[in-house]
Amino acid sequence: MSDLILDPVKLDRLADVAIQTGLNLQPGQDLIITAPVEALPLVRRITASAYKAGAGLVTPILSDGEISKARFEHARDGSFDSAPDWLYEGMAKAYSNNAARLAIVGEDPMLLAECDPAKVAQAGKANAKAYKPALKKISNFEINWSIVSYPTKAWAMRVFPDLKPQEAVDRLADAIFAASRVDLDDPVAAWADHNATLRDRSDWLNSKRFDALHFTGPGTDLVVGLADDHEWHGGASQAQNGITCNPNIPTEEVFTTPHANRINGRVRATKPLSHQGSLIKDIEMVFKDGRAIEARASQGEAVLQELIKTDEGAARLGEVALVPYQSPISASGLLFFNTLYDENAACHIALGQCYSKCFVGGAALSENEIAQRGGNSSLIHVDWMIGGAETDIDGIMADGTKVPVFRNGNWAE
Amino acid sequence: MSDLILDPVKLDRLADVAIQTGLNLQPGQDLIITAPVEALPLVRRITASAYKAGAGLVTPILSDGEISKARFEHARDGSFDSAPDWLYEGMAKAYSNNAARLAIVGEDPMLLAECDPAKVAQAGKANAKAYKPALKKISNFEINWSIVSYPTKAWAMRVFPDLKPQEAVDRLADAIFAASRVDLDDPVAAWADHNATLRDRSDWLNSKRFDALHFTGPGTDLVVGLADDHEWHGGASQAQNGITCNPNIPTEEVFTTPHANRINGRVRATKPLSHQGSLIKDIEMVFKDGRAIEARASQGEAVLQELIKTDEGAARLGEVALVPYQSPISASGLLFFNTLYDENAACHIALGQCYSKCFVGGAALSENEIAQRGGNSSLIHVDWMIGGAETDIDGIMADGTKVPVFRNGNWAE
Repeated sequence: MSDLILDPVKLDRLADVAIQTGLNLQPGQDLIITAPVEALPLVRRITASAYKAGAGLVTPILSDGEISKARFEHARDGSFDSAPDWLYEGMAKAYSNNAARLAIVGEDPMLLAECDPAKVAQAGKANAKAYKPALKKISNFEINWSIVSYPTKAWAMRVFPDLKPQEAVDRLADAIFAASRVDLDDPVAAWADHNATLRDRSDWLNSKRFDALHFTGPGTDLVVGLADDHEWHGGASQAQNGITCNPNIPTEEVFTTPHANRINGRVRATKPLSHQGSLIKDIEMVFKDGRAIEARASQGEAVLQELIKTDEGAARLGEVALVPYQSPISASGLLFFNTLYDENAACHIALGQCYSKCFVGGAALSENEIAQRGGNSSLIHVDWMIGGAETDIDGIMADGTKVPVFRNGNWAE
Repeated sequence: MSDLILDPVKLDRLADVAIQTGLNLQPGQDLIITAPVEALPLVRRITASAYKAGAGLVTPILSDGEISKARFEHARDGSFDSAPDWLYEGMAKAYSNNAARLAIVGEDPMLLAECDPAKVAQAGKANAKAYKPALKKISNFEINWSIVSYPTKAWAMRVFPDLKPQEAVDRLADAIFAASRVDLDDPVAAWADHNATLRDRSDWLNSKRFDALHFTGPGTDLVVGLADDHEWHGGASQAQNGITCNPNIPTEEVFTTPHANRINGRVRATKPLSHQGSLIKDIEMVFKDGRAIEARASQGEAVLQELIKTDEGAARLGEVALVPYQSPISASGLLFFNTLYDENAACHIALGQCYSKCFVGGAALSENEIAQRGGNSSLIHVDWMIGGAETDIDGIMADGTKVPVFRNGNWAE
């Protein structure tokens, strides 16, 4: 555990942003917080902020990287098929009773890099299966939820390997505070402004009703067909319980659902992907009729191959998201090895499950109706970054007309 | 969080004692560990030891005193009736699936001393209600379970208020290591010897079939009627899942079930009781026909009054236990403000729920059959210490014959 010191004023503001902007927690609402144990200083502040906002009961579920790793080091072969079903079923039940959910991320992005990828993948799949009922309530936006981050020492040392621990944590903390807008005097107001900007972008995309997006860039020539009745979203979002929340702090993306059978071409990742404690570098994939028929990586290819084998939908896309190259997180020039940050610094796509929210009237659609419209289904949802300074994107209308969307990594207009 | 250093060899041995002697964890068995977050160094070692012993999945549930306290400082009036039902129901389900359960204790014994006792009691009662289905599986010994301790800084500073933190933690750690027998080269073998001694004592008591015990000492003149078909236990115990475990590490007691309606006389506590983060000092109670009709304390009397008002059984006894004054923990001369230690340094009684195990054939008895034999029922089970250097105990046979059991605090023979 780290006893490194962080700016208490900004931590307090981050806690308030998490409760007021991220969750918009309502009086009487219960809250479940998941966090790495190193994030305890932030968990404590968020708990206090939640109770001050009238929270019912706050329940933290703290995890520890060393304990996670011990399993892969010491547990018996054949024991990696189990998961804490009882805990995830309980969470799902709490969400059914309108508990809000906050995830604090900040784990070591390479925690399990030395472990057997087959064991990690097997455990990951068992976990995803057990977690699915709870995750569904989140991906269907049944409740207000959010993700924020905390600069743990292990994470900071991956981002700034040449710095001393306190310096590395300070630098990462500064980046988190800036991206989360808590370096401003009134972060909650700043978030309201930012949400308005993202809403303008998604409104424009929704008005266009593109049939597909065509991504080009170094190593990339990819046509991403969009799902029928797809809807773009970004920033604040109203959950089915009526509460408008900001599911990611920070967020710079607008996103929607691609069509599971209409992805064609070649795509090269522009940033490494940290997945289940391993780093996957230089991903290249070829898609045909929605399915990844080739998948390579210069590092972590075994992890990638296990990932897309998870189930039928794991080799198809469930999300496409647009983030300008000049967005603040991208402009920091940092590589975070953390999806919450790296996906908000670059256009990205996600393998796996789609969001029902990204359909017109999505909350009312059955799984079957979502599938009929081209929505993908999977145990996984893994974002990876495909945008950079040279990314161009055209929107393709149903009649074949092309509309510039991105030029040289940024909004065309 | 504390970065204070503890002897890694003895911590490793304590972890092994917890898994091998405390739980006797079986290959393939899942394990749930509850612990204060400061005990993480021990939780990590216990997890590794569990996986090495063939554990299925180890799930730690870490708690934090500051977070617990934040609720009483900031949450709204009227919000103290709720508990994390979903979490406790999940635990009960895991126990039903034969998961073992390890509690690591070491919280600040006075964490909530400054909080409103009514709020703490209300939350405690709601928690006890929600936890009852899970606790029942433990108090009925359906699964193997154990409790061990960890010397947190907050606890150590209560035991040694005049020492510096590292010295206080070292002293408390030494006491814990000695009492847990991990200062010996083969702690697991030492526990086997100790269990044999405790079994001899409980065998003797069972052979006597006393109708009651008569406690005398300073401020104490108490007749504790024993339940019909009561059975004495101590040390290792076979759970209903067939696994023999040591539910307390350390343990020095032999214990059985008193009769809920046959306690008469006056009793004075010989040590303070730490309950729900408050200290209750100099407890004095008068019992009539099993019920506490008077209850006083020089400190924390409000907490005590709330406690015995929890439900009808909360003012009656569910356990009586014998611990000689010369037992090692008592001989340390320390006051631990922690029931796991203080109850193993003195004869004690418990208000509240009885153990079904402490009846002949108890596992097969219904709640009604237990009640008919004089077993008490309650949401609480709170031990407090009534034995000291001057304690005498007579066993009273059904025909009125008296047999010396304790003289001057120790076994009469």
